[in-house]
Amino acid sequence: MPTRVLIEGGWVFAGEGDGPFEILEDAVVAVEGERIAYVGPAAGLPADWAPTRRIDARGKAVLPGFVNAHTHHAMTLLRGYADDVPLMPWLREHIWPAEENLTGDDVYWGTLLAIAESLQAGVTTFADMYFFMDRVAQAVLETGVRAHLSRGLIGVAPGSDRALEEGRELVATFQGAGEGRIRCALAPHAPYTCPPEFVRQVLAAAEKLACPIHTHLAETKAEIEEIRAQYGKSPIRHFADLGVFEHETLAAHCVHLESEDIEVLARHGVRVAHNPISNCKLASGIAPVTELLEAGVTVGLASDGAASTNHLDMFEEMRLAANLQKVSRMDARALPAWQTLRMATVGGARALGFDKLGCLAPGYLADIVILDLNAPHLWPRHDLTSLVVYSAKAADVDTVLVHGRVLVDGGELLTIDMERVEHEVQARAERLARAARRG
Amino acid sequence: MPTRVLIEGGWVFAGEGDGPFEILEDAVVAVEGERIAYVGPAAGLPADWAPTRRIDARGKAVLPGFVNAHTHHAMTLLRGYADDVPLMPWLREHIWPAEENLTGDDVYWGTLLAIAESLQAGVTTFADMYFFMDRVAQAVLETGVRAHLSRGLIGVAPGSDRALEEGRELVATFQGAGEGRIRCALAPHAPYTCPPEFVRQVLAAAEKLACPIHTHLAETKAEIEEIRAQYGKSPIRHFADLGVFEHETLAAHCVHLESEDIEVLARHGVRVAHNPISNCKLASGIAPVTELLEAGVTVGLASDGAASTNHLDMFEEMRLAANLQKVSRMDARALPAWQTLRMATVGGARALGFDKLGCLAPGYLADIVILDLNAPHLWPRHDLTSLVVYSAKAADVDTVLVHGRVLVDGGELLTIDMERVEHEVQARAERLARAARRG
Repeated sequence: MPTRVLIEGGWVFAGEGDGPFEILEDAVVAVEGERIAYVGPAAGLPADWAPTRRIDARGKAVLPGFVNAHTHHAMTLLRGYADDVPLMPWLREHIWPAEENLTGDDVYWGTLLAIAESLQAGVTTFADMYFFMDRVAQAVLETGVRAHLSRGLIGVAPGSDRALEEGRELVATFQGAGEGRIRCALAPHAPYTCPPEFVRQVLAAAEKLACPIHTHLAETKAEIEEIRAQYGKSPIRHFADLGVFEHETLAAHCVHLESEDIEVLARHGVRVAHNPISNCKLASGIAPVTELLEAGVTVGLASDGAASTNHLDMFEEMRLAANLQKVSRMDARALPAWQTLRMATVGGARALGFDKLGCLAPGYLADIVILDLNAPHLWPRHDLTSLVVYSAKAADVDTVLVHGRVLVDGGELLTIDMERVEHEVQARAERLARAARRG
Repeated sequence: MPTRVLIEGGWVFAGEGDGPFEILEDAVVAVEGERIAYVGPAAGLPADWAPTRRIDARGKAVLPGFVNAHTHHAMTLLRGYADDVPLMPWLREHIWPAEENLTGDDVYWGTLLAIAESLQAGVTTFADMYFFMDRVAQAVLETGVRAHLSRGLIGVAPGSDRALEEGRELVATFQGAGEGRIRCALAPHAPYTCPPEFVRQVLAAAEKLACPIHTHLAETKAEIEEIRAQYGKSPIRHFADLGVFEHETLAAHCVHLESEDIEVLARHGVRVAHNPISNCKLASGIAPVTELLEAGVTVGLASDGAASTNHLDMFEEMRLAANLQKVSRMDARALPAWQTLRMATVGGARALGFDKLGCLAPGYLADIVILDLNAPHLWPRHDLTSLVVYSAKAADVDTVLVHGRVLVDGGELLTIDMERVEHEVQARAERLARAARRG
């Protein structure tokens, strides 16, 4: 007998697809096993459908779980380690030296911290590109969340063959693990770190493993100039010509795009992960999200790693995404609330290639967030979509289900021992900082 | 005998002035009556200094209270009422019709809601320009917060004489009320709503009352064009020539500035209230905060009203302020964390003309925020200023003192009955929306 969870009495953000939400008042969401069985008025449930658990959502909003479409989760260990520093010195003088001393255990504990923070903020799925990814998979399996995992591959670094082997092993071992909660990809890091021959090797491996690609593309102006100088074309065109986009591709950033680039992305069905906070904080730029959406590109919302973004909070990413489109286009209508919320949920689910994920509708995977609307900043109620996108906060998250299972209950994490995580993370962060300073 | 509050064991963000904070570990803050008596190691307190209350701040950060340097607090009633709409239709078709039906009671309850939200987010002082300001003063006196209050004066509207009379009465009645917790100003709304003759009338009244000025300046490109067409100069130059800046002036927005404007602001000691979220959401633009600070202009951070910003949260305003400077200047070093936190505290205190406010140092007014650093997004601890500015959230606010009195204790509001406020606000918001729709 699968578990049956009945979420009762809330404002349910229903409706499949890309349009504005259909907000049902005093509706129920019935969950059977890992999937949503029913969404609608309580009267519409079959009389013999008996729940094993009831969740009272009166005065609360019931939403699809957020999808964080691009992150380096274990970089929580370096949160606040080097802020207000430009990208290249940030990487070369601070982040890379600190990362050199990372162990598999560090990555495991840093990832647990990121999953804890994310779950309490309503994030049910994330796409993580990092290393020691078998330990990330372990954290995902243990905590019950959903993830798209890939071993970052830097072709120009020593040991790139070994890294590719680790990447392959990750896919072979964990593809579809946790009842399908894990999807695995291969991750050629970026055009400026992966020469063509290395990219071709990665693609050959992806072909054999029938797995998708996760990469960084067109993040900074410096990258555009470097790739143009080297190959005479834009990073998008360059990766297209190498055949990357013949594979299902998740491309993070896509900040600096020409209109031909957008056409290429659209034509090949490349999915984009938009990282508004990271792109501002590292002074990369503002991505043309409106144009991407208009061209029919699938766009998910993302935090990037906590070393550049400093927190993993889709509410703030949503607000910044909407606000950046409005101010950069000088048009207050740009990226309205409903479209932003779709990007943070079903947009991300599609970007990561999870089928039937990101909407509250029968047959969809039961990744659900229940938001308590009782704080002062959530009164009065004129428009609930506006309220969720422009006013709600991570701390309003009350209950979180992933794959039909309650992982956060009344704000409390059920699958993570935070005291242990805090202790481990602090000790490891101090060790990394000390070692990096010694050089 | 004044009350004596001893805040013990926290990380204290000490140090007067504009520079980086001096963060004292395991320090105490001793509060006597409404002022800070001592900041430093516990051993430095006089042996006979016996507290009437002790607050345990172990594992917490102790900060100066945030100052929200420009808001229209009662507009919480219109939170989420009309989003994703450009400024002029937003005002003409949505906000002004709804505001026409506002009563003094509405403003009182809407303001209480804003104060509740603000206090729980660590905001201890705000500058409010609206109407029925006697009712705002009542809310301020009852709840114990600190405020800079002014009746918004629209010279082109019918009843502008009566409005000015109300503005004068507010100053005469409430200047220095609540043991100095209230400062009052006169508020000619903006150059495009106040013809020169009306501005001169307001200045004459300000001269008599010896009170400061609060206004909106250079918010949108449309305003710049309109004022230039009408007077042949920028809004800043125009108000300077009218003699506005001979008075202590708080100017909200200052988004579109030429370098001569910045010189004028600096030379006259005009204080600027920067509203990053509102300026993005209404597609106004990005203010040149870095240039203003470099020119020596006092800049405070602000939320504007919740009808455009949707929440009153200095943490998010800090992050957006820093991120906008970084991305608009393409320089990750712009507006670093410590400078942003100074802007949100002592910058705002100076902008509003409160003396000895905004720093944790002996002799300063005891407006203090204690942040609980125990949530997952606040681990690990590499740099506490970074952590507070880039990672902390309103929900991390644990305790808030204003004028030496505890107003928030363990996250709970001690001077506001939220259940009553929610009920009143929801009913009033619905009435306003109904009436506006009837037209």
